[in-house]
Amino acid sequence: MEEHRQLEELTRTRALALLSSVPIGRLVFTHQALPAIRPVNHLVEGESIIVRATAGAAVTAAAARDGVVVAYEADVIDAERREGWSVIIVGTARLMTDDLAAERYRRRLHPWLAGPMDDVITISADVVTGYRMIAAEPTHAATGGG
Amino acid sequence: MEEHRQLEELTRTRALALLSSVPIGRLVFTHQALPAIRPVNHLVEGESIIVRATAGAAVTAAAARDGVVVAYEADVIDAERREGWSVIIVGTARLMTDDLAAERYRRRLHPWLAGPMDDVITISADVVTGYRMIAAEPTHAATGGG
Repeated sequence: MEEHRQLEELTRTRALALLSSVPIGRLVFTHQALPAIRPVNHLVEGESIIVRATAGAAVTAAAARDGVVVAYEADVIDAERREGWSVIIVGTARLMTDDLAAERYRRRLHPWLAGPMDDVITISADVVTGYRMIAAEPTHAATGGG
Repeated sequence: MEEHRQLEELTRTRALALLSSVPIGRLVFTHQALPAIRPVNHLVEGESIIVRATAGAAVTAAAARDGVVVAYEADVIDAERREGWSVIIVGTARLMTDDLAAERYRRRLHPWLAGPMDDVITISADVVTGYRMIAAEPTHAATGGG
């Protein structure tokens, strides 16, 4: 017997606002034809997500060439109460080539991992999906099925 | 000026133990040639990660055919203290076709999302990487460089 939960789709605006309310997300990309994922810090600037990446990393090389499609995810999930939200962005990652702008973002983005993180990458929020899971009223939660 | 942190690589055993200490992670796969990611609940059983997926989802269809390579990530990161860990698995996802075993796992895996989650998927932990970030002693943290 599972408790009932309500799933609420988030608008683009609400999803981007939730994303900007947390400092860390996960960058998802393809590396040597295999799925890859790394936790990184981010900033949301209008319709773009800004992250720092390790210089010379696979995703940086691809982003510098022609841009590369990546996914970006952040969530806050309370597993015990089974409540929370998740936001997923799909968009093109590009290396920031404006040195002054890159330096400005470097000052604002403090990577949780040590090591060389000299590249600044912008991800265009082309597709934004998000959902929020909230507890449903137990007495009126039954929606049939079985 | 950034504080110094120590990065500690995790052994395979420690990484799998940390993964099994949390209920939720993120399944990373390719959908229509684009990177995709979904938060899911998991169990760790020996060298396999067991997750439930929405019936008919892209990853399920691919897993049922010949198996499909996916990544799986879980982390606990304290952004304020910049401490935490992240574990990343890369392996082949396969649909569990043993109905009795699948039913047993369905009872133990309570998805945080509502909706039909009838498929049970096993991911072989072929490649396990993990790291832990801990605060370094401030007075002895300098390791040169510049």
